[in-house]
Amino acid sequence: MEALFKYGARIVVLPECSNHQYAMRSQEEAREYAEELDGPSVTHWQKLASMYGGYVAGGIIEHEGNDLYNTAVLVGPNGRIGHYRKVHLFDWEIDYLRPGNVGFQTFRIEELDIKVGMLVCYDLRFPEAVRSIALAGCDILLVPTTWTSIGKSVLWDERGYCLANYLAVAHTYSNRMAIACADRAGQEQGVQYMGASMIVDSMSRVVAGPASKCEADYLLADVDILLSRDKRVGSRNDLLKDRCPQHYKLIG
Amino acid sequence: MEALFKYGARIVVLPECSNHQYAMRSQEEAREYAEELDGPSVTHWQKLASMYGGYVAGGIIEHEGNDLYNTAVLVGPNGRIGHYRKVHLFDWEIDYLRPGNVGFQTFRIEELDIKVGMLVCYDLRFPEAVRSIALAGCDILLVPTTWTSIGKSVLWDERGYCLANYLAVAHTYSNRMAIACADRAGQEQGVQYMGASMIVDSMSRVVAGPASKCEADYLLADVDILLSRDKRVGSRNDLLKDRCPQHYKLIG
Repeated sequence: MEALFKYGARIVVLPECSNHQYAMRSQEEAREYAEELDGPSVTHWQKLASMYGGYVAGGIIEHEGNDLYNTAVLVGPNGRIGHYRKVHLFDWEIDYLRPGNVGFQTFRIEELDIKVGMLVCYDLRFPEAVRSIALAGCDILLVPTTWTSIGKSVLWDERGYCLANYLAVAHTYSNRMAIACADRAGQEQGVQYMGASMIVDSMSRVVAGPASKCEADYLLADVDILLSRDKRVGSRNDLLKDRCPQHYKLIG
Repeated sequence: MEALFKYGARIVVLPECSNHQYAMRSQEEAREYAEELDGPSVTHWQKLASMYGGYVAGGIIEHEGNDLYNTAVLVGPNGRIGHYRKVHLFDWEIDYLRPGNVGFQTFRIEELDIKVGMLVCYDLRFPEAVRSIALAGCDILLVPTTWTSIGKSVLWDERGYCLANYLAVAHTYSNRMAIACADRAGQEQGVQYMGASMIVDSMSRVVAGPASKCEADYLLADVDILLSRDKRVGSRNDLLKDRCPQHYKLIG
């Protein structure tokens, strides 16, 4: 993370559960790794953010009272800006964690004049979640993730794209907002983590990635985030204004 | 179309406005090409469907009374099965056509024991539309389309994929349903049509395509459509049951 800040990164995105293993075999095990929102991981990120004048979005298992959440936390030079608790829980998380209860929000980074949204991993497979973030005014979606091989018929294509990479591109194309996905790589308990982190700008250009399939890796890219504000397509259309909610009754 | 039936196709998908130019410069011009649901195009498709025992999903400009719609029609050996009128209108269509008023439905093909949904072109950019079709029970989404260069920063990538191809793959990945997109190719009035028709199965495997970028082309593939019925991911998750509509209030 320090290297990225030294290279000039303003926002660093870390994976889901970034400071420890992903898979947990019991609630007790998950509890061992869990931290509060002002715990050591977030405190460390705040220190680095302050030192380099940057921002960090990273994943932790959060405990609040007796409850555990899969949480993405956004911090800046002046402290914690916001957090998002994963709504759509995956695999072992269903047993040991509570579903998110803070909704789909955006968080303003005043200094950069942008609004940031966060989702975690399996959330990306729910177009409703991504669309909700876009409707809330998101300019760039930051995604701490652990994409897994579970249930996949295709792991990577010949370009090193995993299926979630297609989601990332498609979400930018439907919502005209940038997306930065930071994934875990390697194996754990027979599950392959997909790597292939990716940054896509709001015009659906893959500006960095996919990162390594198998090893820890990083991406660095300049993204013109403010392009996300203009949802127009050609001279007559607008991706958000053209929505027809009267026909979307089945969704809600 | 006859060649495809002779090759063994059971369902043939044709582009949007398949029997004439796409772009219209006036309502009068659109009206010249428009047909009723039992007009000559649909009658011709029915004749071929009957002759070969197959099914056709194709696009027409439909007129009903004084109103024009951008309509996809599904016909089989025994006549017309259903139609869908494009909800999200694009470019010139806004001026000359009415938005769809028959919602997002699925249509049962008894003989093949499947449920078919239809969307048209720009509809695909609205994840709400695709999700609605999935929730209505769709096994395969048939998409007559005219993907255009309008508003695009990327036309095709190095594999001949246009951005809509990413949408197609991503929609199968979020909804576990197959999709067959039949696109127009070539140029009209300075607008490039993207070609790159594609068939993706419900496990997100690109089973055919992208077709030619520039010339009329066809695709033929076997798709195990019934795989779409199983929405499970691994042993604990289900793409439709895991939805959390209480958090999707912004969508509706």
